[in-house]
Amino acid sequence: MKERAVRILGTYRRMDKHKMALMNKRNVMDCIAEYGPINRAAIAKKVGLSVPAIMEIAEELIQLGMVESVRMPGKLSGKPLEQLSLCGDHFRYVGVDVGRETTRLMLVALDRKVLGRLRFPTRQVENESGFVDRICQGIHQLIAESQVDPATVAGACVTMPGLIEQDTGRVIFSPNFGWRDIPLRDWLVQRLPYRIKVESANRAQAIYEISSHPGDRDRTVFCVGLGYGIGGGFYEKGQLYYGASGTSCEIGHIRVSSYSKERCTCGNTGCLEAEASGAALARKAQRAVRQGKDTLLAAMCQGEPDKITARWVFDAAHQGDFFAQALIEQAAQHIGSALATTINLLDPDKIYLCGGLLKNGDDFFQRVKNYALEMQMDQAGRRVEILTGSLEEWNVAMGATQLFPYFGEG
Amino acid sequence: MKERAVRILGTYRRMDKHKMALMNKRNVMDCIAEYGPINRAAIAKKVGLSVPAIMEIAEELIQLGMVESVRMPGKLSGKPLEQLSLCGDHFRYVGVDVGRETTRLMLVALDRKVLGRLRFPTRQVENESGFVDRICQGIHQLIAESQVDPATVAGACVTMPGLIEQDTGRVIFSPNFGWRDIPLRDWLVQRLPYRIKVESANRAQAIYEISSHPGDRDRTVFCVGLGYGIGGGFYEKGQLYYGASGTSCEIGHIRVSSYSKERCTCGNTGCLEAEASGAALARKAQRAVRQGKDTLLAAMCQGEPDKITARWVFDAAHQGDFFAQALIEQAAQHIGSALATTINLLDPDKIYLCGGLLKNGDDFFQRVKNYALEMQMDQAGRRVEILTGSLEEWNVAMGATQLFPYFGEG
Repeated sequence: MKERAVRILGTYRRMDKHKMALMNKRNVMDCIAEYGPINRAAIAKKVGLSVPAIMEIAEELIQLGMVESVRMPGKLSGKPLEQLSLCGDHFRYVGVDVGRETTRLMLVALDRKVLGRLRFPTRQVENESGFVDRICQGIHQLIAESQVDPATVAGACVTMPGLIEQDTGRVIFSPNFGWRDIPLRDWLVQRLPYRIKVESANRAQAIYEISSHPGDRDRTVFCVGLGYGIGGGFYEKGQLYYGASGTSCEIGHIRVSSYSKERCTCGNTGCLEAEASGAALARKAQRAVRQGKDTLLAAMCQGEPDKITARWVFDAAHQGDFFAQALIEQAAQHIGSALATTINLLDPDKIYLCGGLLKNGDDFFQRVKNYALEMQMDQAGRRVEILTGSLEEWNVAMGATQLFPYFGEG
Repeated sequence: MKERAVRILGTYRRMDKHKMALMNKRNVMDCIAEYGPINRAAIAKKVGLSVPAIMEIAEELIQLGMVESVRMPGKLSGKPLEQLSLCGDHFRYVGVDVGRETTRLMLVALDRKVLGRLRFPTRQVENESGFVDRICQGIHQLIAESQVDPATVAGACVTMPGLIEQDTGRVIFSPNFGWRDIPLRDWLVQRLPYRIKVESANRAQAIYEISSHPGDRDRTVFCVGLGYGIGGGFYEKGQLYYGASGTSCEIGHIRVSSYSKERCTCGNTGCLEAEASGAALARKAQRAVRQGKDTLLAAMCQGEPDKITARWVFDAAHQGDFFAQALIEQAAQHIGSALATTINLLDPDKIYLCGGLLKNGDDFFQRVKNYALEMQMDQAGRRVEILTGSLEEWNVAMGATQLFPYFGEG
């Protein structure tokens, strides 16, 4: 009778007054951001706090310059009604999307207005440290051109594809750039007087998608970037999922082929990224042309197979080229297989497919979606929705500006 | 300038006084469960509340009969010191593990003492409803034999392998039993006067593992059951992860072979469960013997290949049989591949491997572990630990008794 079963259902969730106050302030800010202009009583109802509590928080937010109170004539009585809105004058955020070809910078105010944009070719710069200088220079230029007081810039978030260590903001490995073990956040902190974040491009994309669909806030959402590389971002219970070391969601390195000898940038073989990314499609097509394969791509490239990109493969397929069609079909199947695995493991409400490969017509999306739904465990009776995300080029930069909480860390 | 980026970082986490009180009570109970006997000041320190707050909560818990106060002589002053412990007299929980061969029932008190056990062969009963009757009869018998007042039984949790719908406690699909769409929780509620839960065996196993390693409470842990079937349970941020419909963690249905024609119970081909489970090993060995393959297993089964189990395959391998060794090596590789995928997507701190296949010696575990670590994305520099879980036969039943929160739903 001395045997014991330890009963443990959860961690101690320490919630003291300070934490509760922080959470309430964040909720009020979120509420004003989504519904403002909105009056205090309506906020109280939405966030589940008393009107006096909202009045106290609102006063604090007004004094901080984050919120402004606007008098509007009441509809019936004519008595002026006070409404709260976010104030765009004092807190601005910079989002930087370091893409393979182009680096995009965006300045966004707390009240969500876009204040400025800037872009430059990523390839101009040779070494990592020099490139970080170029980013910082771009940020200064963006702020100056937007005629914004630098003192009102509250944070800058730089995103790039690859593995980012969550705690330190180091770039562990970014295959597109050949970067390994670069202390990116440290370098940025040394050069810029702002709060700094470094994040993977796929997580920024995921946050952009969630914020574009307010209904997704309470959902479990996986966002997949299908471009030159392949990666993911996972949003669950109101926040991004990171995992133990911040290197979760590496859907590009799921093994989708057990016999392929295609070497992936990660060193393994058979990874989704090595089989079905934009880079993989281009590489496979180039190789086939060099080997004398009978395909339209041979004529298209006029003897320069190195010029073939994934885009060309889709063009050839649309013109009826069997080889290109087979390549794309195989890629769709591999992506579908990796999505099925993701569904079986994570059981999300929604999956968004984003990235350059989706820009080649709805047909490709439909094939991927059908393979995914067919290969996931059917009996589970899940209602997962698979959708295309927004393909607009500024998404990742926009998402990056949204990664700062109003108060506190995280 | 009218363009807008919606800034949304999280859901409104509504925390009112009632929820906070509930959370504090749960924390105090967890603390007494883990450290009791413990005095009020020590609890206050551990859970981060004031001593008066703890005194108030403790008073309530004592009145409910969940906690008892014990006077112990103080070490220095001799003045009696009041310590709190969980009280085993008023709240008991039944855990039921419906296994393929054996159903195990266990009665555990709130203070974690095991009060009784019972088992019966699962195969005795023909139809689903009759089997549920058999479970209920077993629960009554267990309570009577343990000489426990039925009024003190606070809940019963029935676990089985398969897909369980989280909200309703329906068995969506349990391939081992051929059950589809069985309203198991409803049937139990109609027959038993206790709070009822239905859960997948793998989640109960996961909770058992976490509770056996208190350090895991704040960790991200994936627990894999490798037996006749293959499934998983995922524990993250202090609780089990369910996904949108409760059908997450289906690691057995990750596609590990892109060319195999082995048909899985789920209808697809190439699933981990169809390639590397105990059932798959037995089936592959049986087929090989029937086809006249040169293997020790042919002699071992004495003309009755249907009798071959996974255990026999391991025995033959230990005796040097090449065919059996190759089967096991291939299974280890497939399991390693699925674990690598899980690591790439979820980035857990720890993975526990449990279930019957692990009972065949450390060598198999080591192979699986090596394949997993080799196939996951190496550059991520993760520190994931892969360990064997406990292989004791009562784990799942014990885990089931731990699935009730002290207060509230969940």
